[in-house]
Amino acid sequence: MNALELARAIRTGERRAVGVIETCLDRVTRRDAGINAVTRLLAQRALDQARHVDARVAEGIDPGPLAGVPFGIKDLFDVEGLVTTAGSRVLADRPVADCDAALVSRLVEAGAIPLATTNMDEFAYGFATDNAHYGLTRNPHDPSRLAGGSSGGSAAGVAAGYFPLSLGSDTNGSIRVPASLCGVWGLRPTQNLFPTEGSFPFVASLDTVGPFASSAADLRVVTEILSGQALGAVEAGSLKLARLGGWFDTDLSDPMAAALNNFCRALSITQEVALPHVDAARAAAFVISASEGGALHLQTLRSHASLYDPAVRDRLLAGALVPAPHVFQAHKLRRWFRAAMHEAFAQADILVAPAVVGEAPPIDAPMIMVGGRSVPARANLGLYTQPLTLAGFPVLTLPLAVEGLPLGLQLVAQPGREDRLVALGETLERAGLARARILED
Amino acid sequence: MNALELARAIRTGERRAVGVIETCLDRVTRRDAGINAVTRLLAQRALDQARHVDARVAEGIDPGPLAGVPFGIKDLFDVEGLVTTAGSRVLADRPVADCDAALVSRLVEAGAIPLATTNMDEFAYGFATDNAHYGLTRNPHDPSRLAGGSSGGSAAGVAAGYFPLSLGSDTNGSIRVPASLCGVWGLRPTQNLFPTEGSFPFVASLDTVGPFASSAADLRVVTEILSGQALGAVEAGSLKLARLGGWFDTDLSDPMAAALNNFCRALSITQEVALPHVDAARAAAFVISASEGGALHLQTLRSHASLYDPAVRDRLLAGALVPAPHVFQAHKLRRWFRAAMHEAFAQADILVAPAVVGEAPPIDAPMIMVGGRSVPARANLGLYTQPLTLAGFPVLTLPLAVEGLPLGLQLVAQPGREDRLVALGETLERAGLARARILED
Repeated sequence: MNALELARAIRTGERRAVGVIETCLDRVTRRDAGINAVTRLLAQRALDQARHVDARVAEGIDPGPLAGVPFGIKDLFDVEGLVTTAGSRVLADRPVADCDAALVSRLVEAGAIPLATTNMDEFAYGFATDNAHYGLTRNPHDPSRLAGGSSGGSAAGVAAGYFPLSLGSDTNGSIRVPASLCGVWGLRPTQNLFPTEGSFPFVASLDTVGPFASSAADLRVVTEILSGQALGAVEAGSLKLARLGGWFDTDLSDPMAAALNNFCRALSITQEVALPHVDAARAAAFVISASEGGALHLQTLRSHASLYDPAVRDRLLAGALVPAPHVFQAHKLRRWFRAAMHEAFAQADILVAPAVVGEAPPIDAPMIMVGGRSVPARANLGLYTQPLTLAGFPVLTLPLAVEGLPLGLQLVAQPGREDRLVALGETLERAGLARARILED
Repeated sequence: MNALELARAIRTGERRAVGVIETCLDRVTRRDAGINAVTRLLAQRALDQARHVDARVAEGIDPGPLAGVPFGIKDLFDVEGLVTTAGSRVLADRPVADCDAALVSRLVEAGAIPLATTNMDEFAYGFATDNAHYGLTRNPHDPSRLAGGSSGGSAAGVAAGYFPLSLGSDTNGSIRVPASLCGVWGLRPTQNLFPTEGSFPFVASLDTVGPFASSAADLRVVTEILSGQALGAVEAGSLKLARLGGWFDTDLSDPMAAALNNFCRALSITQEVALPHVDAARAAAFVISASEGGALHLQTLRSHASLYDPAVRDRLLAGALVPAPHVFQAHKLRRWFRAAMHEAFAQADILVAPAVVGEAPPIDAPMIMVGGRSVPARANLGLYTQPLTLAGFPVLTLPLAVEGLPLGLQLVAQPGREDRLVALGETLERAGLARARILED
């Protein structure tokens, strides 16, 4: 059941929020040992808040558009009374947060209920949700496979039916990669559209925060709530779509190539647009991420290196040593690439690309094929997401309605045109081309 | 004779521009072997332009407020038909400039005449105007001493009476240091106030371009012409002055301490303002300069290292290796220091500080005393100028009317308040406290 249906049932008194929360808590308890999407259950707060929602409904007061809807929170958002770990041990001794992060507050104000914090790569630096302290998150659709990361717990939690909504962050693809591998909707918004207050940063120049959802309609309402702005009406049928070629049409696995071709055929997408120097754009995002990430942690690394996840520590240390000229060059390229992206939109309203090369890689052999070679999935799951990050344009991850393991596409729009992305997503869902994959009970 | 007097005499037909230019060319020919302020004489262009000015005067057309006034050009500004060397051999094979730099054009439009290009530290990276390719510029007031840099040729040319105006650039003090040591007026304008188009960059985050002048009245007119804006009327007597203490009141030589005390006594300046963490501000300017300078040259250094001035090459190479986190930290400090500077102006309209610790150091022993130790002047002549650079506020260098070798003060105002600086400069000149030191024939 998706968020809006759930909220409707609760707002009309058809279902009680307490019952919904109890069901979801029970589902986590039963299932999560095999998935490990959740790091902390917020049972007490969730039940208290659910009782409050039910009381308001009983009093005839509308608790909001997301009344009683449980949601998951990537553990880099502040939750009042909890320590924000950002997936680390380094921050475990910090004081508890004295209020909710901005995005958490906005959902709570709309009646939604925080159910759990979710697993992530340490400090969001990874594409695997493989955490040395809190374990690896498994794909709900095949627990022998990766969920993707770094917001893997939030994506897997939606796919596992724990909550129909969750919050994540996307610096180089950390919403888009796990949304694609877990088969749920995800939105990397226009950079700076959603407030980042109360979220632990990774790369200030590239960070975004955004939602996962179980339906396009849910994504619409959550986008409006998180941005604080209504989405304009868009005639999805009149949008001009083009496929991103070149870089984004190389290295696709057979299932992804077939799914993307089918998608384009179904929508009669014939135009192809090539962005220039995508390889350099990806490299620039890498350099900016490594150096800003390294800079953020340098002081703490000096005193607490042993507390870091070893893989993340080495990435941060290497990043802290990047000479500044490379970073200047990366920012110069960024300005140029952003202009090139704007130019690409002279030819289309929405650009379509795969989110990941294919389906979720097996945990025991986390490799993918790139350039004809088998390479580690950890760094390369961001092959198609990372270059787009550099421009800061909004990207919706669309769960394709396919057989087999989930596959996701990226729909890219101009800055601020989330309205087009969501309208198109709804149309494609109605047309049966897109569908979130949620575990049945 | 200063610029305005010269222009008046030419505009009224009392003197001919051609005669003025011939006199100045002759002065350079006679004197510059012992000073080396000039790298190229623009005799043909200057005489052509002078004839044009004289013709217009004869026709009754006003050639502009700087009619027939010769000026010097630091060799990092484009001059049509010449190669812009930026004091290097590296750029010597580049094509000639196809038009004048923006600041050169603005002066030419006002009737002024480019007379010569002037010597500088290679790529403006130095405080000594000691150039491995074009030689060392000597102080006109004592040729056994440094003129200061990096715009030393432009300052020395004014002091030597070659031209009453010249153009320089100031990244960490390259106008203020030589103005102080040569005893002329100099202005580092508010960052981004004057256009840098057509000037070879050094550190984009800190670069400014600005004038040297032989009188405060000249500085007013040249500031208006270079900024393209009239300066507002300011009642100089009502300006509140304070002295910068702490860092700026340490390491002064005896002559500078005496001159500054006399100055403050004459103006009844009793208030002292201390800026916080000036040492860190200076370090941040160093780090930003080294890394941006290094980044700018990295590509060329890879292929043409042997063409660089050895001292500059090593500074650039070291700068190109600075890890990015130090640069991020420097920019963070910069934002903080700028705010602290704004706060300091709650207490005064103009802040007064020495420009350099004392008089020009001897060429054969270029050392100054800092912290009780004798240290190389090259890096430390910017002791008082470099921290102020970080904030981007405008600074006028005032030539004190003192006996002995020249000494200069920095007058600092809030961004955009060049009007206050110039008005105060004029008042102090009239009061006999400030005076440019120009060699007599």
